[in-house]
Amino acid sequence: MKLGAIEAGGTKFVCAIGDEKGEVFEKTVIPTETPEITMPKVYEFFDNTGIEKVGIGSFGPIDLNEGTGTYGTIQKTPKTDWIAFPLADEVSKHTGVPVVVDTDVNVAALSESRWGNATDVNSCLYITVGTGIGAGAIVNGETLKGLSHPEMGHIAVRRHEKDTFAGTCPYHGDCLEGMAAGPAIEQRWGKPGKDLADDELVWEIESYYLAQAIVNYIYILSPDRVIMGGGVMQQYHLFDLIRSHVVDMLNGYVSSPLLTPDRIDNYIVPPGLTNEAGIKGSLILAAK
Amino acid sequence: MKLGAIEAGGTKFVCAIGDEKGEVFEKTVIPTETPEITMPKVYEFFDNTGIEKVGIGSFGPIDLNEGTGTYGTIQKTPKTDWIAFPLADEVSKHTGVPVVVDTDVNVAALSESRWGNATDVNSCLYITVGTGIGAGAIVNGETLKGLSHPEMGHIAVRRHEKDTFAGTCPYHGDCLEGMAAGPAIEQRWGKPGKDLADDELVWEIESYYLAQAIVNYIYILSPDRVIMGGGVMQQYHLFDLIRSHVVDMLNGYVSSPLLTPDRIDNYIVPPGLTNEAGIKGSLILAAK
Repeated sequence: MKLGAIEAGGTKFVCAIGDEKGEVFEKTVIPTETPEITMPKVYEFFDNTGIEKVGIGSFGPIDLNEGTGTYGTIQKTPKTDWIAFPLADEVSKHTGVPVVVDTDVNVAALSESRWGNATDVNSCLYITVGTGIGAGAIVNGETLKGLSHPEMGHIAVRRHEKDTFAGTCPYHGDCLEGMAAGPAIEQRWGKPGKDLADDELVWEIESYYLAQAIVNYIYILSPDRVIMGGGVMQQYHLFDLIRSHVVDMLNGYVSSPLLTPDRIDNYIVPPGLTNEAGIKGSLILAAK
Repeated sequence: MKLGAIEAGGTKFVCAIGDEKGEVFEKTVIPTETPEITMPKVYEFFDNTGIEKVGIGSFGPIDLNEGTGTYGTIQKTPKTDWIAFPLADEVSKHTGVPVVVDTDVNVAALSESRWGNATDVNSCLYITVGTGIGAGAIVNGETLKGLSHPEMGHIAVRRHEKDTFAGTCPYHGDCLEGMAAGPAIEQRWGKPGKDLADDELVWEIESYYLAQAIVNYIYILSPDRVIMGGGVMQQYHLFDLIRSHVVDMLNGYVSSPLLTPDRIDNYIVPPGLTNEAGIKGSLILAAK
């Protein structure tokens, strides 16, 4: 089956034609400007390609409820040109085929569960730590959504005792994203994380917040595996710091051999897929 | 189909014979003592009843993973007599029929989604606030579990500025359960919650912690409805205090008409079922 896939991100739209096995036949990258500039190029890419369906992994917030009449419509976002843009409806109208939408992080979790580092488990959580913090989850074989889609980056965290930074989140100040996303690191220390690789306190504080979040995710979701990606996680030394904090914070409460110092490196892992996760996951959506 | 149901609690085992429609034909209550005393009475109740399957909603922690070889075995719990008791296997051996187990709170969530206050939505969260705090969830039509079952009562919360109480949780001290379950109220104030109904600060602090938890559950799970039960929630004035804190803490971040002052009382609600939730939910399990 010939399928369309769109990875709709804040800086670029990656569009591809592929199949349900995740094979990509053709791909293009279109910069994210306004819908008026970006979308006609998207429609053009899919013209006369014979695709039968399109899957979109989109930035958000986006309406994923099929009963609202605004399924696949972008909601309020800092990218103000896109607010209220009916992404799914417009793509469907211009391609003439059905469209399935989910969040970028849910789509990455789908991809990891099919072809990446969570193929051997029934549930997983995919966390990205970059300019923002987001997470997607696979539960009972499907991506996790409900009233809206999860916004796991915005949970409250307890402040590290050595941290006086106010936080960057315009909604919550010192929520997880406000304290631990890339911009928080840069504002707190005056330079980006990649220029602070040797400063222990930077990563002690960073790992303390991310571990708190993972502990909450474990208590609430109990995923079979936690995959961490995104720009900030390119500091690979963070993995061991996070793992160690997670074991300490759980304090033996959850009975699982994976949540022990010996095995935690098989539980909190980097992604198995590189930059194809979004497109491959969108192909899974399209094949549904 | 004639089915067996067991609501295995810390103080009593409720056993019933019923059917997949939730009808209960016969019921008995057996005190929870040691497995040696309690279980023979359970087996006797089901003797020669012609049941085809048994569903159990159990206290925990309990192993729910079918691949471990210890499915349905109680894990470490303060009820030390029950540690390592293979509840599912023993019930199956003595009744001669298959057994399906889930947590008491997951089973209550199942019941509420079938016959209670969440029949009109696709996902829901059932929270009980009593001697402990636990929550069960329905996601994509199934109860939520993974590596283990959720332990939502043990998430970290931020301390209320007027609260100096150390917390009661033996694992985490001042986690949600340590700060907001019934015993925390009683230890903090020197008397049980039911004798403190008119003390505003008691319920301001209580609602602050419970609202924080619900906000985290919304960000992580995005349930279509939140149902709150248990002894502490018999203080019905708590509902409005919690609702108000939840709206304030979300600060408009999640786009849903339900998460607004006008509609939040349709989102955070009491249970629709009373004391039959556990047995009826266990019948749903048995009918699977």
